[in-house]
Amino acid sequence: MPDVDDRIARGRDILAALNPDNEPMLDALFEGVAPDMTAMIQGFFGDVYARPGLPMRERMLVTLAAIAALGHAQPQLAAHIRNALNLGLTRQEIAEIFMQVAGYAGFPAAINTLATAKQVFSQDTNR
Amino acid sequence: MPDVDDRIARGRDILAALNPDNEPMLDALFEGVAPDMTAMIQGFFGDVYARPGLPMRERMLVTLAAIAALGHAQPQLAAHIRNALNLGLTRQEIAEIFMQVAGYAGFPAAINTLATAKQVFSQDTNR
Amino acid sequence: MPDVDDRIARGRDILAALNPDNEPMLDALFEGVAPDMTAMIQGFFGDVYARPGLPMRERMLVTLAAIAALGHAQPQLAAHIRNALNLGLTRQEIAEIFMQVAGYAGFPAAINTLATAKQVFSQDTNR
Amino acid sequence: MPDVDDRIARGRDILAALNPDNEPMLDALFEGVAPDMTAMIQGFFGDVYARPGLPMRERMLVTLAAIAALGHAQPQLAAHIRNALNLGLTRQEIAEIFMQVAGYAGFPAAINTLATAKQVFSQDTNR
Amino acid sequence: MPDVDDRIARGRDILAALNPDNEPMLDALFEGVAPDMTAMIQGFFGDVYARPGLPMRERMLVTLAAIAALGHAQPQLAAHIRNALNLGLTRQEIAEIFMQVAGYAGFPAAINTLATAKQVFSQDTNR
Amino acid sequence: MPDVDDRIARGRDILAALNPDNEPMLDALFEGVAPDMTAMIQGFFGDVYARPGLPMRERMLVTLAAIAALGHAQPQLAAHIRNALNLGLTRQEIAEIFMQVAGYAGFPAAINTLATAKQVFSQDTNR
Repeated sequence: MPDVDDRIARGRDILAALNPDNEPMLDALFEGVAPDMTAMIQGFFGDVYARPGLPMRERMLVTLAAIAALGHAQPQLAAHIRNALNLGLTRQEIAEIFMQVAGYAGFPAAINTLATAKQVFSQDTNR
Repeated sequence: MPDVDDRIARGRDILAALNPDNEPMLDALFEGVAPDMTAMIQGFFGDVYARPGLPMRERMLVTLAAIAALGHAQPQLAAHIRNALNLGLTRQEIAEIFMQVAGYAGFPAAINTLATAKQVFSQDTNR
Repeated sequence: MPDVDDRIARGRDILAALNPDNEPMLDALFEGVAPDMTAMIQGFFGDVYARPGLPMRERMLVTLAAIAALGHAQPQLAAHIRNALNLGLTRQEIAEIFMQVAGYAGFPAAINTLATAKQVFSQDTNR
Repeated sequence: MPDVDDRIARGRDILAALNPDNEPMLDALFEGVAPDMTAMIQGFFGDVYARPGLPMRERMLVTLAAIAALGHAQPQLAAHIRNALNLGLTRQEIAEIFMQVAGYAGFPAAINTLATAKQVFSQDTNR
Repeated sequence: MPDVDDRIARGRDILAALNPDNEPMLDALFEGVAPDMTAMIQGFFGDVYARPGLPMRERMLVTLAAIAALGHAQPQLAAHIRNALNLGLTRQEIAEIFMQVAGYAGFPAAINTLATAKQVFSQDTNR
Repeated sequence: MPDVDDRIARGRDILAALNPDNEPMLDALFEGVAPDMTAMIQGFFGDVYARPGLPMRERMLVTLAAIAALGHAQPQLAAHIRNALNLGLTRQEIAEIFMQVAGYAGFPAAINTLATAKQVFSQDTNR
């Protein structure tokens, strides 16, 4: 596992490539409460997402499936749906993930997840 | 539950292609308790996994990530790790999924998931 | 997903009997995101709720208890509270379910569930 | 915790009527760790299960559905499956509950729950 | 539910010492739905929080950590963050709890929890 | 957030101070599956547990409460109960945490947690 500045810098780059709004969004969220959380999250991305073991598209599938299965994390899910769209996943592919999660985490988690996806898609008028 | 219809037949084929042991394992599990569950699960596979929206490899990533995030479903996870190995995912790719899930569902879910993976890998001497 | 088959037709009838708004609500929710989800949910109702093993009133108790225990599915819970009222469960019976769930899923799940129930009851001026 | 009061006595009676083994099982479980937990649980039963709002059979359905949806509580579930059998629920009715929970908490929770049920049924040779 | 007994009176006092708004808030929440829930919650506080085994500050840490880990209980969490501030926990200490929970329940639970904390802190202009 | 080698080294020291068995246990667990996980966990401890915001005793309370609330992480919980005992928490204090968690995550999570605690206590014959 490599150098620390490196891992945070690397994670910051990964998050910025997914969506330039990610860092300002995290900074605004944690401002005055837990400002070091942005670096903790960037460090996690630098440690894990930067690993060569899975391509970024597949990492995004894993993240969307995992958060959808939790059922309780709609704001986080919205941010990652935007990341996935920016990375090139289609709306239909994202919806497929959530339909499949229904079998493992139940219909309510899937339905609420699809409602979040629909809301994000409606704000995403570039595609 | 009606006669075996197209969706159940299609799901049975998908599950058998992943692992010929899936159907006898499910039948043995539900025998004398809930024998119709095998067809319900096959029907879900026939409805969802058969859809063209995501390739099977990516559906397997979604399933492993979703079950790992639940945290409580180690026996189910073991069966799907075997399916994933049969489909051609490498041990390292499967481990990457679970390391990444740590960020979304926490270290305990990831650690216990990796313990299950290790156990399955040790029984899987063909690879 | 194949043509509407017996199980989907049966599930649609069950959902419509519980609340004629169920199908348009599901269709509106999934429109443009995952339109096949309505049939998947109807198929589940056709497979499970149509079984003779438990009367509909008891199936509704099971559903309300299960969703309440999840803790994260308030919109789904609201829809099923309306179904339960239409089926003849009293407000007091519904509240009893959620009070009891407190012991198994904790006070926060029960409190938020009761807040959802209160909101549904206040919109349900026919009873 | 105060002297055994009415609610604890009432809950003890309810638990003993469901299964005379409940109190010794709880006492053995908590001995040397948290002996007051038995009274806390009995008090919960005395507060909630004793309420007239739902008959005991329906309270048992609620409990089995809620614990099944949690996914992680197989030992507790086994104890309540025994209580349910003693109360007169049939094996088929208990299995129906868990099949239905699949739609709300996912297949893994339902499958593991049915495995627990099968184990309890196999030890229950009186019926 | 019996007459207000010692445990309920004791729990009411503990909750009122944490925040005089707790009882009216609970009463308003449960009014017309499940009015006995206020006493059930007070009884739980009287049974558990009144025990000498842990000081109140440490009980508050336990409660905040447990609710944060659930991920789905933001309204409950907000009430307990207010209780914690009234008890003398600093904003920084409360944020530390939630940052640490990230490792056990994942970033989404921690992020949403910190968003709730930020909102409560912004309404809490006395400190 | 400081230098990387520093954070892993610092986390390793913290974990070793809690229990010299922690690092070999983690290494053995992840050997051949995900060997970098040990450093990821140590890095988390170096980032979070090393922060001055909460004393180690209080961090241990937070960790035990959070893992107990998850309900599904008994092996992780056992390791942290050992850490807590080594740090000087008494058996009674640990049991108090889990009794209190019952109110937030339900009786099943608390009961299974106390069963794990009992097992750890019985292996811990030095105290």
